[in-house]
Amino acid sequence: MLRLTLIWVDKTKEPWLRTGIGLYLSRLRRYLEVTVKEVKGCPHLPRSDPKKILEFEAAAIRKAIPRGAATIALHENGRGLDSPGLAWLLTAAETKGVRDLAMITGGPSGLNEDLIKNSDDRLSLSPMTFTHEMARLILLEQLYRACTIRAGWPYHH
Amino acid sequence: MLRLTLIWVDKTKEPWLRTGIGLYLSRLRRYLEVTVKEVKGCPHLPRSDPKKILEFEAAAIRKAIPRGAATIALHENGRGLDSPGLAWLLTAAETKGVRDLAMITGGPSGLNEDLIKNSDDRLSLSPMTFTHEMARLILLEQLYRACTIRAGWPYHH
Repeated sequence: MLRLTLIWVDKTKEPWLRTGIGLYLSRLRRYLEVTVKEVKGCPHLPRSDPKKILEFEAAAIRKAIPRGAATIALHENGRGLDSPGLAWLLTAAETKGVRDLAMITGGPSGLNEDLIKNSDDRLSLSPMTFTHEMARLILLEQLYRACTIRAGWPYHH
Repeated sequence: MLRLTLIWVDKTKEPWLRTGIGLYLSRLRRYLEVTVKEVKGCPHLPRSDPKKILEFEAAAIRKAIPRGAATIALHENGRGLDSPGLAWLLTAAETKGVRDLAMITGGPSGLNEDLIKNSDDRLSLSPMTFTHEMARLILLEQLYRACTIRAGWPYHH
């Protein structure tokens, strides 16, 4: 079974989003082994230097990636997938013998360019921009949906 | 100022989503006059006839549309817009002299075909499919984002 590591920056602040994220996480765990790694965002550097912030966060993210994992960066310029496409992506990873898959979501400042470039794949959830906390919820709901599609369950709504 | 009517089927059941929807609704109301009309979903007809359900719901939705309003159906086959595109859509509606804009989201069974076809525009939030309740949250967050873009505020995350 594919082991999924979801890496994001800082804990989710909005309580209602934490509830939704927890709900879809527990649903997703019926299908996949999922680990969430919340790496510490950059607290000390001045907000005026986003590049430095992203470098700091990228170092923490790299440490959180399991050894040998295939990596997917969630990024607005990534490939757009529909829900069956995401299901197929998971199945294709398994078929290729991928054991660990790490999906990386950036913080409020985004994601480091090198991290994006060096990821094995780049996905976009929508042409629309979401808050980085809402992107977590949407990603989890989509992963759960993808798993139900793979399992042939009639979950569509 | 544009008056926005958001029409959807049945109340939002998930409490955490109700919280998020309420939050973005109050934020959005800083910029637009917004009315939410939750029309009653079809309770009596057998679940096995989705076409009948959608006809029943479409009748209720049509009654909820303000007289003379421009209508937008949210539908997976609609036009995909990015966030600045949605901002532009609101501004274009105002420029055209649109006073009332009604945005219609379907229920668990979707939206009636005629209702989709006869709408003035059809939008898709993402190539990915969302639950109909999550689509409400995403739509509200996107409308709020569009309003901040129009106002020149630095809200991006």
